[in-house]
Amino acid sequence: MEIHHSIPALRQALQERGRIAFVPTMGNLHEGHLTLMRAAREHGDTVVASIFVNRLQFGPGEDFDKYPRTLAADCDQLRAAGVDVLFAPTEQDLYPEPQTFFVEPPDLQHLLEGAFRPGHFRGVATVVLKLFNCVQPQAALFGKKDYQQLMVIRAMAAQLALPIRIVGIDTVRAADGLALSSRNGYLAPPERAEAPRLYRTLQTLRQRLLQEGIEAVPRLEKEAAASLDEHGWQTDYVAVRQQAGLLPPTAAGQPLVILAAARLGSTRLIDNLEV
Amino acid sequence: MEIHHSIPALRQALQERGRIAFVPTMGNLHEGHLTLMRAAREHGDTVVASIFVNRLQFGPGEDFDKYPRTLAADCDQLRAAGVDVLFAPTEQDLYPEPQTFFVEPPDLQHLLEGAFRPGHFRGVATVVLKLFNCVQPQAALFGKKDYQQLMVIRAMAAQLALPIRIVGIDTVRAADGLALSSRNGYLAPPERAEAPRLYRTLQTLRQRLLQEGIEAVPRLEKEAAASLDEHGWQTDYVAVRQQAGLLPPTAAGQPLVILAAARLGSTRLIDNLEV
Repeated sequence: MEIHHSIPALRQALQERGRIAFVPTMGNLHEGHLTLMRAAREHGDTVVASIFVNRLQFGPGEDFDKYPRTLAADCDQLRAAGVDVLFAPTEQDLYPEPQTFFVEPPDLQHLLEGAFRPGHFRGVATVVLKLFNCVQPQAALFGKKDYQQLMVIRAMAAQLALPIRIVGIDTVRAADGLALSSRNGYLAPPERAEAPRLYRTLQTLRQRLLQEGIEAVPRLEKEAAASLDEHGWQTDYVAVRQQAGLLPPTAAGQPLVILAAARLGSTRLIDNLEV
Repeated sequence: MEIHHSIPALRQALQERGRIAFVPTMGNLHEGHLTLMRAAREHGDTVVASIFVNRLQFGPGEDFDKYPRTLAADCDQLRAAGVDVLFAPTEQDLYPEPQTFFVEPPDLQHLLEGAFRPGHFRGVATVVLKLFNCVQPQAALFGKKDYQQLMVIRAMAAQLALPIRIVGIDTVRAADGLALSSRNGYLAPPERAEAPRLYRTLQTLRQRLLQEGIEAVPRLEKEAAASLDEHGWQTDYVAVRQQAGLLPPTAAGQPLVILAAARLGSTRLIDNLEV
């Protein structure tokens, strides 16, 4: 596996490499990321991964400084997963001057995660566009775990006429159902034992939703959040939304997704479940 | 010359075309545009032009509706200038849904032209990025007549890591000095006779600036604006600025540019002169 840090070296390395499938990450890789890497093989001749902890998408008081940076172990895993090229820029490589041009997403950026993390999706859209311009892939793969991020990037690709297919890949879960996440490493053992409740709560809500219909959504959302809070969580939201655009459902038969974010101690977990 | 209207047809046509040099325009072509087309030949194997009157960069009350649309004559001129491919999308092709993602430029967008045309450079940056994503050129050429536009696009290319060289080309002028512009066609004959005063005023200002130094800038700017106004112009600004970033000069020896915008009747003209 080739590793490049600077944009010019990366571009040089990717000439004559055929169709590129790209998986951007913030590193601290787990099986969810590696599933994306293996899936990428079906979408290009060359699989490129990136590792960059993007300051722009962290708010003040968020975990930018303590976000786990594990490059050596990540490289071993990427090699084993058959990745051809890793782009691992420093901040100086990707932001040689302070970033002043931004991709400004529409209202979708202020919903749900965006309401709790102001500026997050602007930071995500900007860095993803910039990474796309460095790598120039034909396809890019993202996990459905960050569902709203996937929707923002899909919309950005359509709206800015990016010549890139955006591929969403199902969330990988631990045996007990917990969605894999780099932030799971923050959980103390009792919290880790409690954490699968988040996914179970989404499953229960889905079952009731299928029985009771969308009229019950406000009540079901409240009950789900209350049941998490009863078990020591601080719930930011549990929300039933349309898959496209993430607005509340307006009619029966729409493809829906249930999204949740809740804190367990100082760790904030998110998950979602398509209906 | 091939003409394509849809993004998929354009992309199909540009496969296997080698390095592409691109000149985006709003049509109603004059010798300034054609100079860009001929210069483009030195920057790529294939020269692509686009014609698209971009609603996003016009403010309310501006001349979007009356902006001259002369596609047949433009095509003849592009053919004669040796352009290989013309991309002429309809609004439906380029904005199949309302544009909701924008490229948001930094403070530079609010200076000078931006102060008089709020949102203009956001609209320019967004459509240029979108056209770049359609054409995927190695180089793109812009006239220096729209100096601030060139600075915004140069900065965007650097800030978003676009794999595109941005080339600025000197303004083409009529024999009497008037910068060529599609908007010159709006001028009545007496206005057309008066119009070269704009460039003469910039030349006079440059001469005095070289004699008197940057301490004199505020006075020279005022005098230049007043002399235009005395001759029936309504001056929006005459400004001496640093070339990079378009901020006021802070020290002797900086590369400077003098920029002006003024209305003659209902026609708004802009021009500039590097020092």
